[in-house]
Amino acid sequence: MRILITGGCGYIGSHTILRLLEAGHDITVIDNLSNSLSESLLRVEKLTGREIAFVEGDIADRSCLEGIFDRDDIEAVIHFAGYKAVGESVDQPLRYYGNNVSGTLTLLETMDAYGIRNLVFSSSATVYGANPQMPLKEDFPLRATNPYGRTKQHIEEILVDLQAADSRWRIALLRYFNPVGAHPSGLIGEDPQGPPNNLFPFVTQVAVGRRDKVSVFGNDYPTADGTGVRDYIHVMDLAAGHAAALDYLSGHQGLHTWNLGTGRGYSVLEIIHAFEAASGTSVPYELVGRRPGDAPVSLADPSSAFRDLGWKASETLESMCADAWRWQQHNPDGYRAKALPA
Amino acid sequence: MRILITGGCGYIGSHTILRLLEAGHDITVIDNLSNSLSESLLRVEKLTGREIAFVEGDIADRSCLEGIFDRDDIEAVIHFAGYKAVGESVDQPLRYYGNNVSGTLTLLETMDAYGIRNLVFSSSATVYGANPQMPLKEDFPLRATNPYGRTKQHIEEILVDLQAADSRWRIALLRYFNPVGAHPSGLIGEDPQGPPNNLFPFVTQVAVGRRDKVSVFGNDYPTADGTGVRDYIHVMDLAAGHAAALDYLSGHQGLHTWNLGTGRGYSVLEIIHAFEAASGTSVPYELVGRRPGDAPVSLADPSSAFRDLGWKASETLESMCADAWRWQQHNPDGYRAKALPA
Repeated sequence: MRILITGGCGYIGSHTILRLLEAGHDITVIDNLSNSLSESLLRVEKLTGREIAFVEGDIADRSCLEGIFDRDDIEAVIHFAGYKAVGESVDQPLRYYGNNVSGTLTLLETMDAYGIRNLVFSSSATVYGANPQMPLKEDFPLRATNPYGRTKQHIEEILVDLQAADSRWRIALLRYFNPVGAHPSGLIGEDPQGPPNNLFPFVTQVAVGRRDKVSVFGNDYPTADGTGVRDYIHVMDLAAGHAAALDYLSGHQGLHTWNLGTGRGYSVLEIIHAFEAASGTSVPYELVGRRPGDAPVSLADPSSAFRDLGWKASETLESMCADAWRWQQHNPDGYRAKALPA
Repeated sequence: MRILITGGCGYIGSHTILRLLEAGHDITVIDNLSNSLSESLLRVEKLTGREIAFVEGDIADRSCLEGIFDRDDIEAVIHFAGYKAVGESVDQPLRYYGNNVSGTLTLLETMDAYGIRNLVFSSSATVYGANPQMPLKEDFPLRATNPYGRTKQHIEEILVDLQAADSRWRIALLRYFNPVGAHPSGLIGEDPQGPPNNLFPFVTQVAVGRRDKVSVFGNDYPTADGTGVRDYIHVMDLAAGHAAALDYLSGHQGLHTWNLGTGRGYSVLEIIHAFEAASGTSVPYELVGRRPGDAPVSLADPSSAFRDLGWKASETLESMCADAWRWQQHNPDGYRAKALPA
């Protein structure tokens, strides 16, 4: 079937597209390139030998969506498009709500008008907020603590109402934990525009010499080494989770929510040391104060996804580090330099 | 000062405009007339001898808003525009989120671009959801239980984030309880398009002969007579609350949330009997089953508005009924018939 991928040029989008092309699906991408480069799709085409239909455009542009739905026989949408930086969302909430929520509403209205009612939505563990109960289960209350997280929560709530109103909708809400790593080819990976907001790309950029040192925010948390513990998930596992969710929807009605995580946590220092071991580099770091809003620990209970989808993360911390390093080494400046591995 | 009133042709909007004109303010109205008639503004002009600048247009139409902000020197916005029927919102959630939330985002973005950052927002007691603790206080958690209520809750959350990001915004969130009654002239009042969703206009339409009988949803609630108890507030008190909130904002920064209610509850049967007494008519009713989602009791704690604004509801159940009856009698078919009192 042909699937529309919004925000398909981004990190998770491009890896998911690769997985779906390998599974035999056809892919159309809409991306406004506000935070990504279409080079990622050329790399995926190179890796798969398949063509991707790419439309540079915005999901808030109804006529652009209509053009796609008129031309392509789209059966499902995987909706990645959205701003994703917590700090930026605190400073520019209107921009975040406008882009993420209003954009999604335009997408949903247009899908509905075309009778396309299969949707996989890119949500986030941030919707759980500061819940201290671990591991996090899908039926915990939602209480996002920043505007970015609230855009995800609002969209989830809209989708629940939409599916309750019209049972023809089949919807998967995927709550990602911390996606890291890259395709093992080193051809595609995470390419943040500007300073990375997340630990992993920061570590890889330090290792490759683009930055001096990693800032470690807080070492007085109630964890084994005092630094924050997160549930890191390899992006190829995440991509497989999307493919599994999409398959599930073709056989099941309703709205379904799944955590995509491993259930296993690593501290900031464990990540830094594992990355040093995998890369053979040294990663200088500096201990600085806690960041407001950071939880000590965040861990998924991934058992629902295993029960329903038979999906389970299979990659290791070593492969997360090795694959991230291969990508970063071969593409020290990301896609912009267009440096291909020999 | 000149104030833009969105949705100003509606029930609460028109009464608030009258109050603001009497206080010496100038008024511009934007209303798409999707659920109202501009006749209400002609009536207000007649009552006040003042002119209202009316623009037929949608708050989701950025260029329409820009036209107003270019032309008029708007200093504050009171934002009433929005769909408001709970049942309809359950059936058509996308329409509700699109109109209420996306529309508000466009309004806020345009206000921000023009440096207009004084806003009074029309929220609702529905944001409290099914909280059994009474009376309801502003700092209770928000947990709306239907899409209409969630549009109000989402907008409140957006406004909190917006004001936190930019302290130049001065914002009042007004949570209305159950607005009833009409201006004592009988010239303006509530004019629902289609079957009324609320008790009061249903009662007045039965009294005037437009409908056969009132359905009373549930008589087995844990209340004195078994029927649901609500906090009814006279629309002229509500209008005064808006004027007081607007005054407050000119002297105070920040975001402020106030319940606008009386703190006093009346049951469905008490309302029916009070209305019979005030109108000298008989109002036949039928006991039917509970409506899903209806709470037994809903009551405001209005003490914050009194403390901060010096505002307090002063009208009585008798004046609520008498004024509603005067309006309905003189305008049995609402504004559509354009029947003016002799």
